[in-house]
Formats: sequence, structure tokens, C-alpha cells
Amino acid sequence: MVHPDNDRGFERFVTFLDAIVAIAITLLVLPLVELTADVDEYDSVNQLLRENKSELWAFLLSFLVVSRFWFAQHDSVRHLVRYDQRAANLLMLWAVTIVFLPFPTALMAEAEDNATTKVLYIGTLIATMLVLAVFEAYLRAHPELTDADPEHDLDPVVGIVNVLMLLLALAITLATPATSYFPILLLLVAGPIANGWRRLRGRGDRRTSVGE
Amino acid sequence: MVHPDNDRGFERFVTFLDAIVAIAITLLVLPLVELTADVDEYDSVNQLLRENKSELWAFLLSFLVVSRFWFAQHDSVRHLVRYDQRAANLLMLWAVTIVFLPFPTALMAEAEDNATTKVLYIGTLIATMLVLAVFEAYLRAHPELTDADPEHDLDPVVGIVNVLMLLLALAITLATPATSYFPILLLLVAGPIANGWRRLRGRGDRRTSVGE
Amino acid sequence: MVHPDNDRGFERFVTFLDAIVAIAITLLVLPLVELTADVDEYDSVNQLLRENKSELWAFLLSFLVVSRFWFAQHDSVRHLVRYDQRAANLLMLWAVTIVFLPFPTALMAEAEDNATTKVLYIGTLIATMLVLAVFEAYLRAHPELTDADPEHDLDPVVGIVNVLMLLLALAITLATPATSYFPILLLLVAGPIANGWRRLRGRGDRRTSVGE
Amino acid sequence: MVHPDNDRGFERFVTFLDAIVAIAITLLVLPLVELTADVDEYDSVNQLLRENKSELWAFLLSFLVVSRFWFAQHDSVRHLVRYDQRAANLLMLWAVTIVFLPFPTALMAEAEDNATTKVLYIGTLIATMLVLAVFEAYLRAHPELTDADPEHDLDPVVGIVNVLMLLLALAITLATPATSYFPILLLLVAGPIANGWRRLRGRGDRRTSVGE
Repeated sequence: MVHPDNDRGFERFVTFLDAIVAIAITLLVLPLVELTADVDEYDSVNQLLRENKSELWAFLLSFLVVSRFWFAQHDSVRHLVRYDQRAANLLMLWAVTIVFLPFPTALMAEAEDNATTKVLYIGTLIATMLVLAVFEAYLRAHPELTDADPEHDLDPVVGIVNVLMLLLALAITLATPATSYFPILLLLVAGPIANGWRRLRGRGDRRTSVGE
Repeated sequence: MVHPDNDRGFERFVTFLDAIVAIAITLLVLPLVELTADVDEYDSVNQLLRENKSELWAFLLSFLVVSRFWFAQHDSVRHLVRYDQRAANLLMLWAVTIVFLPFPTALMAEAEDNATTKVLYIGTLIATMLVLAVFEAYLRAHPELTDADPEHDLDPVVGIVNVLMLLLALAITLATPATSYFPILLLLVAGPIANGWRRLRGRGDRRTSVGE
Repeated sequence: MVHPDNDRGFERFVTFLDAIVAIAITLLVLPLVELTADVDEYDSVNQLLRENKSELWAFLLSFLVVSRFWFAQHDSVRHLVRYDQRAANLLMLWAVTIVFLPFPTALMAEAEDNATTKVLYIGTLIATMLVLAVFEAYLRAHPELTDADPEHDLDPVVGIVNVLMLLLALAITLATPATSYFPILLLLVAGPIANGWRRLRGRGDRRTSVGE
Repeated sequence: MVHPDNDRGFERFVTFLDAIVAIAITLLVLPLVELTADVDEYDSVNQLLRENKSELWAFLLSFLVVSRFWFAQHDSVRHLVRYDQRAANLLMLWAVTIVFLPFPTALMAEAEDNATTKVLYIGTLIATMLVLAVFEAYLRAHPELTDADPEHDLDPVVGIVNVLMLLLALAITLATPATSYFPILLLLVAGPIANGWRRLRGRGDRRTSVGE
């Protein structure tokens, strides 16, 4: 039985999740802030910036990734009309991967060429997308929790393509270390590829919260 | 007399509490982020991860614990229709134990085998659950503050079992240090035990905000 | 002219302020977290706790103070039905004193007996209360912004007594350093004194958001 | 097609943005908190405060700037009735400049006289204002997204004057380093100048969320 207070409780839960993501995305700047304490060890501010380019890229890349993941979660969650224990657990599991991300981000800034770092960083991203994909599968199997039209709002192809792009990115950067973390930008084409696939099958784009 | 603006004020207060918990749970990653500054002192990233396994476990365990505590508080608070000074004070006391937790968490990562650390960490968890139990007792004694059905929404047995499990966990880890912090996972069976007890007495599960 | 969208804009502003306070109160734990990095410099965890008692007190005291200040601001703001530029500026000025507080708190933990530290810490608290008192005076002078009954909701005596108690606390701790920061607890009697004064003049307690 | 759930989704997005700004503005205090760890290296707390005046100014200036930018964004966003992908992207781009600001702020505290620092700090501010100006231009070109009266709510002259003032501030501080970061206070006259220009053209002040 779903309790009548579920609605308000669910609103609180979603706001709680959003706050966690907002904090995690903002904490990404902390390694940059800490850099400035060592400014005396450099000849100049220019040199500090030059020698810590990887910190700056790590910040921008993780900001981009977390913000895309937030929109992806937003798209999945917005049709929920109630939730149950398993949906809540899956979303908290999703949150732990987001909260964890500042760690591989900082590691990437310090030891970007290291294979373990790459596996840890991209592996965390894959975990985030996989948990969200499982969450969407759970919603498809429990239509009573959502007012979504599964075909247009919860098509699994988007999540699958995102995970595939990340696996491909990991393979490329491990095979050709010089590509560094740029293969992760393959994420940017995951949406168009998934929607291209949908169109081939006679459907429009998967609907998102931001309309068109 | 409860002021008519109490409702909106109460909403603000609950959101304020939720924001505090969201921040505290996200700050748990900071000791991991700071680890990365010392990456040069290790032979490799692998070694850094291996030698700091306790930091990673501390992060995951505290994330799990805080997220469970948030749901527990959520279950107690969702039936409030107004609040008074004592209810507010109890919830702020609850919040201070949550905000404090990153300290024993970081200590646990640095000195996990130390008995004082264990008492401090598990003691903080017990404090959190005890304050919440007192808060629920206060609600049972002041039905005018809540629309809960005390028997189904505020049964004290849940809080009591949680505290007992934590005391048991503390006893086990002090008696058998090799068990480390794993006995805390006894928390996971507190809910089933409490509900089993309720069923024995002819009641269903205690109701929670997540339905079922 | 007050724009019709003022309402929603004002809600956003209040939530923004609340989020700032929630973050500032949670950041108070960071000096404690950083302590743990030096655990190897101590003989034991017990010794670390003993030698850093002032950090623990600083945390608890500032948590108590910020949480009281949040309720005080809550009481002033809850009757606002719209806002203007000056009200917004005063509330942001209030926020800057709250965001600043983790600095004197950390200073107090490191150099608690220092007179400058005491002036800075208690001075910041006085600034917070003074700005709120000015904000309330502004509301009394602009009844169109609020649905408050000035006599019962915005009586200046509460703010005045709070500031007097803090000035008294500063005088006591400077005159008798051994009292440390305990005189700040005089804040706890500010409310009862203000309400005693109101009763002497034939009024009930000043109304607060938490009812009674 | 704009999905009917767009409204609620948009509310969540705006709250998410606000939370990011609230966190970024609060993190500005962290370099001050970290200062206190070195208190033993100074003769006295007075000396610590004297020698780190630039940190204190950097904190206050950035707090002022971020709070003004939040109000500016608030003014632009409050008339949105729905959003699309480009509007969302522009607002996230705006957010990244805000989240980044604690880095140039900390750099400014450490190396305030350095020309690169000045370009980075003021350049970040210019980026924030430019992205907001582009966002407003986008809204003017897509009136279906907003219920604003473009002439009174989205007049580009405000954004243009803000950017001009920052460029002027950058030129002044680079030409006359002794002026330090004070020229940034030119931002305070950007509003009056923009509104003066509007009045010359027979219009009232540009409307803002805070009424008047």
C-alpha cells in the first residue's frame, strides 16, 4: 500500500537528491582552490596554470559529466508519481556514485596517465549510467510508480548507448593513452545516436524534461 | 497557540534539515579527495588505493548509515502537521549528530583499529538514533502535532531495535577487533527484526514514507 | 511597484538564504575533519581528542549559535509577503556574517585565549544580530512588505537584548579570560529576558514561527 | 513540443542552480578557514589578520559579486515559463563560471598583484555576465519560453553596461596596479547607468524581481 503522504515525501526525497548533486558538482572546484596554496612554489601564476592544466580539464570534464548525468536522472525521475523502497535504494546508489566522483576527478588531476586512474574514473561514470539504466528498467517493470509512456520516456536504448560510449572511451584511452580523457566526450554523441536509432524504428526522439 | 504561518515555516525548517544532511553526506568524500594530494608518496595509484582501503570503506559505510538515518528521520517527520520549540530543538540536536559524523568517519579512516575511535563512531550513530527515538516519543505524547497513527507510524520498537543493534555492534567490535566496523551492518536487519516483532503482536509492518 | 512575480522570486530568495545557512553550519565540521590527518603526531586517539577539546567546543558552540540565528531570521522573515531591494540587501548582509563565521570559529579553535580572536568571534555574532535588528526595524517602517503584527511579531526588544547579552559576554571574557567562551551562553537567556520585559508591559511572549 | 511536466522539471532545475550558487558562495570562506591552521607561524592573531588582509578582501569582494550575479540571473530566469535544451545549456554554462570563481578568488588572495590573476579573476566575471547576456538574448529571440515583456524585463543594455564596466575595471587595474581590485566596484554603478540610459529613451527602470 502506498501511503497518501507518499507524494510530499517523494518531493522531499527528490530535492534531497538534487541537493547532493549540486554539492558534489560544486566540490569539484576544491582541488583547484587547494592548488593556490602552493603558488609560491611556482615561478609565476602563468606557470602554475600551465603545470596544472590537467586539474583545470579534470574540473571542466567532471562538471560537464555530472551536469549531463543530472539531466539524465531528471528525465527518468520526472514521471515518477510515487516511489517504493527499491526505487529509493536505486536512486541512493546512483547518488553514491555521484558523491564519489570528486575522488577519481582529483586522482585524474594528479595522475592522469595512469591506467588505474582511467579505469576508476570511467568506471565510476559507467556505474552511474548503469544504475540509472537499472532504475529505468525497474520503472518499466512497475508502471504503477510512474505516469511515463515507456516507449517515449523510458526507452532503454539511451542508457545502453551511454554505457557503450563509456566502454568505448575506456578502451580507446587504454589502447592509445595519448588520447587522455577526450574519448569521454563520446558521451556527447550518445543522445543523437540513441535518437537516430529510434527514428530508424519509426519513433521520434526520446522525450526529455527540457522539451524541444 | 500555533501560529497560522506555522505550516510554511515548518516546510522551510524541514528543507533546512534536509539540506544539512545532503551536505554532510557529500562532505564524506573530502578525506578521499585529500588523499590524492599525496599520490607522489606512493609507488602507484594501485598502491594508494590498496593502502587506503579503510578510507574507501569508511566513506561507503558512512554514506550508507547517513542515508538510512535520513530515511528514518523522513519517516518520523512526514506526519508532522506543525511543530513547537521542543520538536525543533530535538531535530536540531539530531542534525548536530549528523553534521558531526564526518569527524569520526575521518578518524576511522586514519585509526580504524583504535577502541576510542570505535566508541566515538558507533557512539555518534547511537546518539543519532536515540535522539530520533526521543523525538518520536515526544510526538506520541503530543498527538496534536501530528496526523500519524501512533501504532502504525511511530511504533517505538523500530528505534529501540536500531539502538540495540548498534550497542551489539559496539560490543562485538570491541570484543573481537578483527570484525572491524562490519558489525554496524547489523543495522540492516533492525527493520526486519522490528517488523517481525510487530507481526508477532498481530500488526503489519511499521509504515514508511516509501510505501509498500 | 511590486511585480506580481515577486512572490515566487521571494520564495526562491528565502530558499537561497536557507541553503547558505545550511552549508555554513555544516562546514563547521571541516576543521575537525582536518585534525584527523595529523593523528600520527599524537600518542593515541584519546590524546588527540584531549588536546583538541577546544576544536570540539568551537564546533558545538558555533553550531548552537548559527542554529539559533537561523531561527531568529526565520521569525523575522516568515511574515514577509514581498520584498524590495533594501530588504534583500539587508538579508544578504546578514548572510555574509553567517558565511564568515567558520573563519572565527576555526581561529577560536586554534587560538582561543587570544583577545583579538574573542573580539572577532563575538563581534561577528554581534554583527549578525545587529543586521537582523536593522532588518526588523526596516520592516516596522515598511508595513506594506509584511503581514506581521509589529507589536507581537517584530518587537525590537528581542534583538536589543540579544545584542546586549553578546556585549556583556564580550566584556566578561575579556575581563576574566578564564571564562573562555562560556559567557556566550548568555544568549540562551536573551529570549526569556525579552519576554519577561514584554510581560511586565502587559504583553504576551513575542510570537515565533515554532508556535506555542 | 514542450512536455506538460516541463513546469515541475523547470522548478527543479532552477532550485538545482540556486543550490549550486549557494554552495559556491559559501565555499568562499574555505581559504580563510585554512589560514587558521598556520596561526603558529605568526606572532599573534593580529598579525595573521594584518598579513592576510587580501584574503579577507577577496572573500568580501567575491561574496558581493556572486550575490549580485545571483540576483541578475534571478531577474532573467523569473519570467521563464518553460525551458528548452539551449536555455538549460546556457544556464549550466553560467553555473560553471560561478562554481569556478572560488579558484580565481583563492589565487587573488595569494597573488593579488599578478596580472594573470587579474585577467583570470575579472575574466571569469566577464564570462559570467556574457553568458547571462547571451541567455537573455536567447529569451528575446524565443518569446514562447517566457512571459516577460522584453522591453521592461530583458533590456540588453543592463548586461552590456555590466560587461563594459568589468572591461573598464580590468583596463584600470592593469594600467594602474595600485588600484588593485577596487575598480570591480564599478559594477555597483552599472545598474544606475543602464537605468539612466533607459530613462533618456523615455522608459522607466528595467524591472527586477525585488520590486520597486
